Amino acid sequence: MNEHFSDSDTELPPVIYDATLRDGAQALGIAFSRAGKLRFAHLLDEFGVPWLEGGFAGSNERDRQFFEDAAKEKFSRVRIVAFGSTRRAGGRCADDPLVQALLGAGTGAAAIYGKSWRLHVREVLRTTDSENLDMVSETVAYLKEHGLAVHFDAEHFFDGYKDDPGYALSVLERAREAGADSITLCDTNGGTMPEAVHDIVSAVFSSMRRTAAPDVPMPVLGIHAHNDCGMAIAVSLAAFRAGAQMIQGCMNGYGERAGNANLTTIIPALQLKLGRRVVEPEKLAGLRALSLAVDDLVNQRPDPRAPFVGESAFSHKAGAHVAGVRRNPATFEHIRPEAVGNERHVVLSELSGAANVLYRLKQTGAAIDGSAGADGGDLSREEVRRVVDELKSREAEGFSFESADASFRILARKALGAHKPFFELEGFRVFVEKRGGDRDCRSEATVKLRVGDHSELAAGEGGGPVDALDKALRTALTKFYPEIAKVVLTDFRVRILDSKEATKAVTRVLIESTDGSMRWGTVGVSENIIEAAWQALLDSVEYKLLVSGTPAPR
Amino acid sequence: MNEHFSDSDTELPPVIYDATLRDGAQALGIAFSRAGKLRFAHLLDEFGVPWLEGGFAGSNERDRQFFEDAAKEKFSRVRIVAFGSTRRAGGRCADDPLVQALLGAGTGAAAIYGKSWRLHVREVLRTTDSENLDMVSETVAYLKEHGLAVHFDAEHFFDGYKDDPGYALSVLERAREAGADSITLCDTNGGTMPEAVHDIVSAVFSSMRRTAAPDVPMPVLGIHAHNDCGMAIAVSLAAFRAGAQMIQGCMNGYGERAGNANLTTIIPALQLKLGRRVVEPEKLAGLRALSLAVDDLVNQRPDPRAPFVGESAFSHKAGAHVAGVRRNPATFEHIRPEAVGNERHVVLSELSGAANVLYRLKQTGAAIDGSAGADGGDLSREEVRRVVDELKSREAEGFSFESADASFRILARKALGAHKPFFELEGFRVFVEKRGGDRDCRSEATVKLRVGDHSELAAGEGGGPVDALDKALRTALTKFYPEIAKVVLTDFRVRILDSKEATKAVTRVLIESTDGSMRWGTVGVSENIIEAAWQALLDSVEYKLLVSGTPAPR
Repeated sequence: MNEHFSDSDTELPPVIYDATLRDGAQALGIAFSRAGKLRFAHLLDEFGVPWLEGGFAGSNERDRQFFEDAAKEKFSRVRIVAFGSTRRAGGRCADDPLVQALLGAGTGAAAIYGKSWRLHVREVLRTTDSENLDMVSETVAYLKEHGLAVHFDAEHFFDGYKDDPGYALSVLERAREAGADSITLCDTNGGTMPEAVHDIVSAVFSSMRRTAAPDVPMPVLGIHAHNDCGMAIAVSLAAFRAGAQMIQGCMNGYGERAGNANLTTIIPALQLKLGRRVVEPEKLAGLRALSLAVDDLVNQRPDPRAPFVGESAFSHKAGAHVAGVRRNPATFEHIRPEAVGNERHVVLSELSGAANVLYRLKQTGAAIDGSAGADGGDLSREEVRRVVDELKSREAEGFSFESADASFRILARKALGAHKPFFELEGFRVFVEKRGGDRDCRSEATVKLRVGDHSELAAGEGGGPVDALDKALRTALTKFYPEIAKVVLTDFRVRILDSKEATKAVTRVLIESTDGSMRWGTVGVSENIIEAAWQALLDSVEYKLLVSGTPAPR
Repeated sequence: MNEHFSDSDTELPPVIYDATLRDGAQALGIAFSRAGKLRFAHLLDEFGVPWLEGGFAGSNERDRQFFEDAAKEKFSRVRIVAFGSTRRAGGRCADDPLVQALLGAGTGAAAIYGKSWRLHVREVLRTTDSENLDMVSETVAYLKEHGLAVHFDAEHFFDGYKDDPGYALSVLERAREAGADSITLCDTNGGTMPEAVHDIVSAVFSSMRRTAAPDVPMPVLGIHAHNDCGMAIAVSLAAFRAGAQMIQGCMNGYGERAGNANLTTIIPALQLKLGRRVVEPEKLAGLRALSLAVDDLVNQRPDPRAPFVGESAFSHKAGAHVAGVRRNPATFEHIRPEAVGNERHVVLSELSGAANVLYRLKQTGAAIDGSAGADGGDLSREEVRRVVDELKSREAEGFSFESADASFRILARKALGAHKPFFELEGFRVFVEKRGGDRDCRSEATVKLRVGDHSELAAGEGGGPVDALDKALRTALTKFYPEIAKVVLTDFRVRILDSKEATKAVTRVLIESTDGSMRWGTVGVSENIIEAAWQALLDSVEYKLLVSGTPAPR
């Protein structure tokens, strides 16, 4: 039994560094919109992540816009980092456009990567070992002189160390002497085994301690791992145990190839398995919601098998397991699912979701109206079961209420018999026409609806069929309910749920609306994308009328 | 630098034990047909896996049928194992229906699980510590007496060992004395860290060596890990290094909760990273095909991010990585993709430069047609620049060619002036109507197009507007190009690109098509979702005609 049996060798508190908007966005199919990046930063700020890499400085317009947007926002905890590299070989920092872009990003913090593997110095940079060392120290020093916090990422460090430990260590040494605040050891190609990472990080940590000058502060040591061998989590934790205090990774494991180290796994593993505080326990209980919100931002299908946060992470199908868990959850579960905001899914257990639903009703209820029952204030067991049943049947059809609170409220009101519709649809028609191969499409819609005794027909045209339908609906309604004029759609997302049958698959439409002061999300599901959009539009205007206290017609 | 730095502590050759048909099939959504199970067994036999757990004996009809089917088949390498448990508390093996079912399966090999955690003995079995020990030894001995190979799985071994090492070891001791051929330590709830697993397996290995009687053969030690902490691979390999020669797992990581240890990761990690021969190298080169075939058997969408075998496992998007890989693959790749039957995938993105494009043109070109230039065979600098310019301008509009190879080919052909259209669109109309609040929508489309001198009008109806349009297009075209009848859409994805303006935002539609033997992806972008879908449908049929060598009309 050696020292590894203890939970951790290190006493240092873990520091999380999120690279989703930079390294995560390198992945196939992962693309954040401008608004999505900002929302991501706020989500991580609220969760309690201290460092967030926002993108490349000086490389593309979208990342530049994010730095500009982020500079106008207030964050309580998170610090945004601009990403770049050491200056070019043979150049000067003052003339280097990419180094200047790091200053121009206005983030106050930069991360730069530099080479520590001589193969790369020779074959990729095509320069000398000593010039590479100068590139590292000059760039770090230059950014420090300009007042930035500087993170130095030693690219391919583990390959570099195996090839030539002396040279690899000298790269780190130069970054430290130049004043780097953190030095991160990157396993860039994801090929190093956790045991080797543990030993190399230990050796680096000892070497840096041994050679530390008394007047130079010891930088934070970090780890940046990729999942090419399926071991990014183990590599990250092995490095942490050996002294790498800062752990870089991406939400939901996004990243090139097999992905980056998954922070939605690392954070609970650190906090619940190693007993090291990363965020407040009540924030950790929001981890599953955070994971789903991030998937929504980039339109990714959540991985049901994701450790801790996946829908199946605490599911039990085997009869023996179900019985054991009923008797004592510790017999088959290594943590409490609630600690990460997840829940036990016991197949055939009809009341599994009740507590969750009740919690959700109470959480969102107060904002709606005064009727206690309909808002989950004092629901009976039977009432809760009715809501749970309706929720489960909707979810089975493909609905998802994670980012559609307003639709969830309306669903609950309907299940409890408390919902009175504000209008009735008599019908709608949507018409899209294209003439000739190159011309644009024309979209028109008509909506006919009834409010009390009055029937109203209105038309709309727009950039696409849903836009036309939205306009027609709002034109018809505003006559009866002028407050609808203030409602604007701010987000519109479409997900195909079961693409086995391609264009016949079920479509889920998520809509976000605002009236200038409040935001709400709604959802619709149908084989027909127009019908799905219609359901979400309908919930959106009904929710607005509900919250405004508008009386429904008799 | 301690002993872990070496690739492995053990000298024992790894032995793979596949549990997909039993533990993997416990997962929600994983179900093998009767024929599928048999096909799976043959796939693993051909690949070179020695042990395959076929299902529960005596528990359900489907598993019984499999044992019956398998008994009639010839396998060159794999041995089928029937799964069950120790006899019931207070009973006798000769009267125990589940123990008898293990004999009845006719496999010649059985795996039984037994308790090694006193919490389970007390709370789940509700029996005494000593009766549990008798249950283990009597059941192993009984099956051995009847001539079976016996695998003993010590359920929850690591929790049991942490709770009471003496008792946990005595369970193993009894299994060994009774003649078990292998003893597998199971981390049943997936909660044990790799370092602890390494230390506990080492301790077990030493203890068993120390207490071995000279006349009792040493059983093979095994590991069975789950991915609840995202570390099933690391746990399995840590156990292997410490002396657990047999590694249990499931193909593609199927399994309850977060899944079982993924054999499609473990096998290449053992062979390519630890240098331990598991299968013949030419068999390993069939690993990706095997992984896809297994996904097909249970109708699972392949995980593009799966280590080694995923579609993205060797994708490169960042310009610096692409340049590096072109110069020397070892700079950014830890293994050769071909070793596992995968290939390098260079992703086209907004960051892409001429190097990316040229590489991609050369890679996909030869399959298209004979004209060298249009296929990137020998393009001039000027020609490559024209393709890059066109690509960049499309990407600025919102197009993405990362998973739309076929649209990229058509774009390149158009930029090079090599594209002749197969038909001209005269116009289309799409009509969606809903009558009343609860009824479903009706979708119809008409398409009018011209091929040479002939004009054709066709109609289609479908579950949604895109389905209707697809049907109308294919009906119109099949008259001229019968090969279009074979084309089926297999995937349809929609992404809203800049959701600031909500329903007026730009929509990107990605379509995947197949003709039964080949798959290709296409893309369309427009403010109007119907127009975007139209573009992707158009590229899809044009690509099929192009690849088929169909001549375009004059």
